[in-house]
Amino acid sequence: MMMMTVEVVAMNEITYAKLSHFRRLSPYNFKLRNNLPSAYSYKTQYITQNIDHFGFDNGKAFQQRYLVANQFWNNDGGPIFFYTGNEGDITWFCNNTGFMWDIASEFKALLVFAEHRYYGTSLPYGSASFTNSSTLNYLTAEQALADFAVLIKYLKQTIPGAGRSPVIAFGGSYGGMLSAWMRLKYPNLVLGAVAASAPIWEFEGLSPCNSFFKIVQQTFMSASDHCVANIANSWGTIQNFYGQSGGLEFLTSSFSLCKPLESKYDLEDLMNWLVDIYGNLAMVDYPYPASFLEPLPAWPVKEFCQYLSVPLSDKDLVVGLSNGVKMYFNYTGQATCLNISESSTSSLGDMGWSYQSCTEMVMPMCSNGTTMFYNMPWDYTAYSVECKNQWGITPREDWISTQYWGKDIQSATNIIFSNGQLDPWSGGGVLQTVSSSLIAIQIPYGAHHLDLRAANPGDTAYVIEARIQEKNILKNWIYGIPSF
Amino acid sequence: MMMMTVEVVAMNEITYAKLSHFRRLSPYNFKLRNNLPSAYSYKTQYITQNIDHFGFDNGKAFQQRYLVANQFWNNDGGPIFFYTGNEGDITWFCNNTGFMWDIASEFKALLVFAEHRYYGTSLPYGSASFTNSSTLNYLTAEQALADFAVLIKYLKQTIPGAGRSPVIAFGGSYGGMLSAWMRLKYPNLVLGAVAASAPIWEFEGLSPCNSFFKIVQQTFMSASDHCVANIANSWGTIQNFYGQSGGLEFLTSSFSLCKPLESKYDLEDLMNWLVDIYGNLAMVDYPYPASFLEPLPAWPVKEFCQYLSVPLSDKDLVVGLSNGVKMYFNYTGQATCLNISESSTSSLGDMGWSYQSCTEMVMPMCSNGTTMFYNMPWDYTAYSVECKNQWGITPREDWISTQYWGKDIQSATNIIFSNGQLDPWSGGGVLQTVSSSLIAIQIPYGAHHLDLRAANPGDTAYVIEARIQEKNILKNWIYGIPSF
Repeated sequence: MMMMTVEVVAMNEITYAKLSHFRRLSPYNFKLRNNLPSAYSYKTQYITQNIDHFGFDNGKAFQQRYLVANQFWNNDGGPIFFYTGNEGDITWFCNNTGFMWDIASEFKALLVFAEHRYYGTSLPYGSASFTNSSTLNYLTAEQALADFAVLIKYLKQTIPGAGRSPVIAFGGSYGGMLSAWMRLKYPNLVLGAVAASAPIWEFEGLSPCNSFFKIVQQTFMSASDHCVANIANSWGTIQNFYGQSGGLEFLTSSFSLCKPLESKYDLEDLMNWLVDIYGNLAMVDYPYPASFLEPLPAWPVKEFCQYLSVPLSDKDLVVGLSNGVKMYFNYTGQATCLNISESSTSSLGDMGWSYQSCTEMVMPMCSNGTTMFYNMPWDYTAYSVECKNQWGITPREDWISTQYWGKDIQSATNIIFSNGQLDPWSGGGVLQTVSSSLIAIQIPYGAHHLDLRAANPGDTAYVIEARIQEKNILKNWIYGIPSF
Repeated sequence: MMMMTVEVVAMNEITYAKLSHFRRLSPYNFKLRNNLPSAYSYKTQYITQNIDHFGFDNGKAFQQRYLVANQFWNNDGGPIFFYTGNEGDITWFCNNTGFMWDIASEFKALLVFAEHRYYGTSLPYGSASFTNSSTLNYLTAEQALADFAVLIKYLKQTIPGAGRSPVIAFGGSYGGMLSAWMRLKYPNLVLGAVAASAPIWEFEGLSPCNSFFKIVQQTFMSASDHCVANIANSWGTIQNFYGQSGGLEFLTSSFSLCKPLESKYDLEDLMNWLVDIYGNLAMVDYPYPASFLEPLPAWPVKEFCQYLSVPLSDKDLVVGLSNGVKMYFNYTGQATCLNISESSTSSLGDMGWSYQSCTEMVMPMCSNGTTMFYNMPWDYTAYSVECKNQWGITPREDWISTQYWGKDIQSATNIIFSNGQLDPWSGGGVLQTVSSSLIAIQIPYGAHHLDLRAANPGDTAYVIEARIQEKNILKNWIYGIPSF
């Protein structure tokens, strides 16, 4: 890793937008795109679930969706690979988790992809699910895990042969957290878990709040040191235009914004939008063209940074930045203008995560001004107040570390924690092997759960090796074959 | 064990009262008595707990009571012994769990006794807690475990030195189930658990429903085979009096009942009451005089059976029985008459358990007519209907085995499952050691969690040995000293 001192431009803290910014920091905070008809063949099914697994007064039920592919399965002992759905439509995760499809035949596995309640079509109160804190009351990780547990038990009881099948949980990102937590809380139902890019320690007291943005910077630094310096300088440059005649117009036209910038608040939105873009670019810095969040070329961070590869200032810096941003949003040339509210809460999926981040999923994030980002302090009190205003509820910042064991996971067994080193979420991940069956796999030059994606001719040797290691560990769990 | 064929008198099934009978079968279904001022010294404290740990809409809190004794504690590494309170006032469990007090000094332990929500003074909605299914909605084992988890974390964070103290959960009966479940679900917070007489498998599909009554009979058989034969014959004898002129009056006066028997329903209540008494006698068949449920002499089953030690019939049989029953209720000579509704739901604690047995704690019980009891089939549908009528909710008979791992506990560690062989609840207990750290201890001639009681000059060598074994295992967990 090349060392370099980044000059950080001092500036006033941006306070207005920072909370809604942090709120949005779900791994999938951008609208999921390109959910094209699947190349994979599966059946869509439904199970009746209690809306409330932890109380009896509600008494209502809903239909949870799950997808099943049995064409590879040996129903005489073949395992069940069970994807623990996260914050989005399950068909999207099904189509973007090629690893499970790639290895299903070798393991003769039954594939099941279970949708997370309050996402996709698995809505406890249908279209009224997001009405208020009462209809949202059953959107928690505990309820989702209980759904998975009930579903696994049901599958084992009703599918002939499945009773003998060991179940392996798979998941990426928040879904990876759920996979790991399934093994912690329901080891009676899952033999092991593949938790890819699961930031189970991205919570109060478990990781430094600046880890995310630090890793974003590292990832950009590995593409180009000038790129990082230019981004660091850009915040002051952008703010300078605010005071200049025609400055906002210049920024609007440079970034081809759909809606002209008109106020300081708009400027802050622009800056938050850029922060999100950098975070997302680091997350999806895959070695081949992919359409995970946006259609992008191979190594998109490098691609972005080619516009910022020499020291730039003033208008040149803005133009360089905007060209990078256009590459991000308009790689396929479809967009006519860019929308800085693109990453704000709009779809139902976004609303679900916005609620979850205001209840259990409080992931403190900050940048203390020593990175290429501006100073973004973590202010739980303000965060909590904003959650109260938005949803009428108060978050519980230390609940997750109580319920899911915090750093004290050593008594658990059979979990793979894989992380890509480019991925900013890896800062909250388990990066060191804890025991012979709590195994950390770090993937150099790997982005957000790259290992769960389908094999690709552009794959690095590192991710190929990681997948081999994961398969060997699975064979060890399932068949007792030594994995090393 | 002496073998003997018990002649069972065929009779019509008693259907009216059987459900309410089963419902009452809590380990502590009789009113807890003799909660005299404690010989033990502790401080009473309170912690603010969320009424709903698993949802955010409720937003209310309540005061959970807990008792702390720090006079034995070495705050530089001494352990915390944490009693996971069950269905009753915590001061009662504190005073009846002498084992913790007896070993506190040797371990230099901090003692904590945490009250279970909805019992004692830990009432989420105060005196309105039992109003309806809405105020009762937060009475579940999951919420209680979450209370314990939050409390342990709070103690470790706020008591100087406690952060370094390993925590051992202790509990008896349902409290023992909670201790074991704490280790399953929160091993980050408890290093191990002593689960005494914890029938964690007394649930659908995990144990035969007739185990309880089978063990009651075995316990009576070990006192006197004639006693068992007399009890087996008594049901028909009692029913015969129903058809005779003056029969009900005879039964009323023989049992010194406070309220005369007047109908067939009363007769069924009488029979249910007797069934309860036999179950309770087996539970509390301690080797020395004790006042666990009622003030009783040593070996009360033997004491009871001395009135039935020769073959009896007709009026002699009724008189023999009634003398035994009077011994049970009137050992100290205080009672002027006996009340067959004594064991019905009356106190708040009883209401709590009645609700729990209608939600999560569905423990199927039956007698199929091959024991000294009459035929009492298990009818979940009828049970469920009665719960719906009583509480407005529907039980979930297979939830506990999903949530608490059923028979698949082998991935857990550090739990002692102790059971007394006289105790009818041992039928749902873990009687065989599962692994080097999931250890079953069977106590010959032991009744319901005898090992948790204070040392007594009348203790058998078996329970003395069991306690030594438990202490050695605790030393192994806490200090790494080999336990064998």
